[in-house]
Amino acid sequence: MNGAESLVHTLLASGVDTCFANPGTSEMHFVAALDRVAGMRCVLGLFEGVVTGAADGYARMAGKPAATLLHCGPGLANALANMHNARRARSPMVNVVGDHATYHRAWDAPLTADVEGVARPFSDWVRSGLTAKGIAADGAAAVQAARTAPGQIATLILPANTAWDEADGPAAPLPVPAPAAASAQQVETAARILRRDGAKVVLILAGPALREEGQRAAYRIAAATGAKVMAQMSNARVERGQGRYPIDRVPYPVDMALAALAPYSTCILVGAKHPVAFFAYPGKPGSLLPEGCDVHVLARPDQDIAQAIAALADDVAAGVAAPAANAGPRPTAPGGAITSEGIARTVAAFMPEDSIIIDEGVTTGRGFFPETHSAPRHDWLQLTGGSIGEGLPLALGASIACPDRKVIGLQADGSAMYTLQALWSMARERCDATIIVFSNRKYAILRHELMAVGANPGRTALDMLDLGNPDLDWVKLAGGMGVEGAVAPDLDVLADLLKAAMARKGPFVIELLVP
Amino acid sequence: MNGAESLVHTLLASGVDTCFANPGTSEMHFVAALDRVAGMRCVLGLFEGVVTGAADGYARMAGKPAATLLHCGPGLANALANMHNARRARSPMVNVVGDHATYHRAWDAPLTADVEGVARPFSDWVRSGLTAKGIAADGAAAVQAARTAPGQIATLILPANTAWDEADGPAAPLPVPAPAAASAQQVETAARILRRDGAKVVLILAGPALREEGQRAAYRIAAATGAKVMAQMSNARVERGQGRYPIDRVPYPVDMALAALAPYSTCILVGAKHPVAFFAYPGKPGSLLPEGCDVHVLARPDQDIAQAIAALADDVAAGVAAPAANAGPRPTAPGGAITSEGIARTVAAFMPEDSIIIDEGVTTGRGFFPETHSAPRHDWLQLTGGSIGEGLPLALGASIACPDRKVIGLQADGSAMYTLQALWSMARERCDATIIVFSNRKYAILRHELMAVGANPGRTALDMLDLGNPDLDWVKLAGGMGVEGAVAPDLDVLADLLKAAMARKGPFVIELLVP
Repeated sequence: MNGAESLVHTLLASGVDTCFANPGTSEMHFVAALDRVAGMRCVLGLFEGVVTGAADGYARMAGKPAATLLHCGPGLANALANMHNARRARSPMVNVVGDHATYHRAWDAPLTADVEGVARPFSDWVRSGLTAKGIAADGAAAVQAARTAPGQIATLILPANTAWDEADGPAAPLPVPAPAAASAQQVETAARILRRDGAKVVLILAGPALREEGQRAAYRIAAATGAKVMAQMSNARVERGQGRYPIDRVPYPVDMALAALAPYSTCILVGAKHPVAFFAYPGKPGSLLPEGCDVHVLARPDQDIAQAIAALADDVAAGVAAPAANAGPRPTAPGGAITSEGIARTVAAFMPEDSIIIDEGVTTGRGFFPETHSAPRHDWLQLTGGSIGEGLPLALGASIACPDRKVIGLQADGSAMYTLQALWSMARERCDATIIVFSNRKYAILRHELMAVGANPGRTALDMLDLGNPDLDWVKLAGGMGVEGAVAPDLDVLADLLKAAMARKGPFVIELLVP
Repeated sequence: MNGAESLVHTLLASGVDTCFANPGTSEMHFVAALDRVAGMRCVLGLFEGVVTGAADGYARMAGKPAATLLHCGPGLANALANMHNARRARSPMVNVVGDHATYHRAWDAPLTADVEGVARPFSDWVRSGLTAKGIAADGAAAVQAARTAPGQIATLILPANTAWDEADGPAAPLPVPAPAAASAQQVETAARILRRDGAKVVLILAGPALREEGQRAAYRIAAATGAKVMAQMSNARVERGQGRYPIDRVPYPVDMALAALAPYSTCILVGAKHPVAFFAYPGKPGSLLPEGCDVHVLARPDQDIAQAIAALADDVAAGVAAPAANAGPRPTAPGGAITSEGIARTVAAFMPEDSIIIDEGVTTGRGFFPETHSAPRHDWLQLTGGSIGEGLPLALGASIACPDRKVIGLQADGSAMYTLQALWSMARERCDATIIVFSNRKYAILRHELMAVGANPGRTALDMLDLGNPDLDWVKLAGGMGVEGAVAPDLDVLADLLKAAMARKGPFVIELLVP
């Protein structure tokens, strides 16, 4: 058994059975090992950002890490942006990065790079294998690191000779430490604040607190104390729809966020971070909390967030029943001209129960959340790290994790272009994913930002934000990668296309001509 | 004048008048400055790898750096792979990376990353601006660093407040140090070796030595001493065709390279590096030189290479005329079934004088060089860093630098998928570029490597190297980005399409169905 085989065995024994790959020459022994060791599901991506974005989507839905297979420093570099997003989502991920044989590095061959240096800014754990006999143990340690709360990015560098040299065999899985419980003091302090200030308190939820049970606990606390419940701005996964709660997120525009949080004298963070402006703007604050607002941490991201919110509910809402969850009528498709709300209502009208929504809608998507509260039960996945170009890969990875659930991508066009290669993998893997591309033919968010910055922007600046000239044709782009598609010029056609797409299996792209 | 305006003025005064851009919110003041300061040509890319690859192609042909405009750590991350290739090409480049306002970083907003840490592995010079008043001087220093021999990657981080705060005005350009001359001893030692060992010496040329004059000097040396002249394996730019010399490169396959270099007892490096295997293989050497072969450095990459080879020619070949250059008949198009040699002959038959050939042909392209020696005069640009996915961006950048010259891309399909977004920029900028995509629907190079590694590779491994299922349709992909295209199933149709493409202006894609 060579090092590569020992590593594949170890990954499988540690519960990692899916590998998103874009291999090169230095990974050929690992690729060959995939034939000799049964059980690893391999998904090829034609660009590395597809690979790591898909691993993120997979982890969010499967609740465990996938492996990625990447090629040398530059291949890892292409993977970094979506590693960044995954890290902000607190998704576990095990990156295996093939590299030159250890003794070949000194020659500085063309692909040579400081692979550890490349990995470090976006990894929580980095190790470079030294020998084939040690690489299995390195792999077990990588999985352990990835699975350590709240979920980490582990990057294992696999020099070619550690893959092809003789190894001793697989390594045993290492124990995954349970997340630390929130302390009694964290819970008690929160309870005292809530009893004292009630309606002046906002609970900001993130991570596991946004699953159904966590939300129920939070809404019991709200019912008992009058506190407000919100989700942080960008979330890895929110359980939503019928039977869940109509939770709002901290808004993206700074002024809206400041207004939304203005009423509160204390903010209790439930796995969330201090709410801050996505970007700084001249003359605007960085913190979104009102001046003098106290902040209390009920649970850090690496603590047991679900247990903390349950314990707090037991304390301040003992005997208080959960309020009624969403039970309003399912929205109907409005037809007519395209509006953000209309898109959301159309999607809500046709999505099947247990859909997985991938939201990289950017400007077009701002109005989606309220209109889908009463949709059938679903999961909502957002871009967490702000690096656009993860929507399509997330859809791929979520579909691989949950092949029996419909994935619906709400996808800005400019963002989609960064990693459009994901469509090819969706076609190959026959992912049951419908992608609605919001074809507004501009970086609309940047036009807003530019207007805010410069009086009367001119041609040069506007050209930098314009995706027309030439127009992108998403039906052709999808068709070029084996995915069928169609154009929707209005919400009536969107309704027809969505209805048809929901009734069939496999990937489909709808280019929605957003004005 | 704000910091962004002072920076744009400074770049222009320093000779940087072209900017390849993929901006985000933190760059909006820089974008707005482009309106207020005349003279900067801006080219939008829809993915950052397009931007840096284009800047590389531009620098190779323009002989000076372009600027790039990138967005925060993750945007820079997407740009790294082609920064790596550019660095291996020794192309000058000035990256401007917008980032959070300095005072906003501590909030760790979603896009926050260690931007300097991201830049460092692939940059020769990194600086983070501190104040608007200092950013112009930082920009001048960045251009100076980029233009320092042999050409460097300079990355300047532009925090948003250094762009929007009031500045004092532009900074004066800084002097660019001339490359150091090769020492008299470097030249004299080379001369003594050549006089002693003549035909046992191989000169390996790189960089400026591969321009017409450098080659002529090398071939005079060869005529006088019997030495062999070769180019290194991968080169930023080789002047070739009628009137130039039929120089061969060190081959990529290790066994071929060892055989090609076996006859020589001394290797003289003329701006080249010690020839080494692209990858390590079990039981094969890293150095491509025969055991005991001496190595002498006539000129390091950072020295004046053209001057060194001229001085050496003056020494050992004084009075010796340059041998006759290529003067054979121009190849004719063979028609018929597709072969590597036939593709090359077809291109040679139709390319106009002063074409710029972008060679990311990978396996299909191995046989191209000899068949194009007698083509009309042209420049040949290769992938220098081994990170596939630079061919299309190089074509974009070369065309922006030389709008009156025909660019011909010889492009492997798997490689093209990494940065296919470059086609959109070519359409927008009306680049006069014809791209021939070698559609073999596999990572052919990896299949060779896999066969060498594993006896009888199975389905899982082969699937990881297969780009079929579904087939990519390059006519649709190009059409989706506003570029016309057509399919060539054989060399007859290729000839017809090429002839037509050469007679028109603007971008065109030919999907060549390589068996």
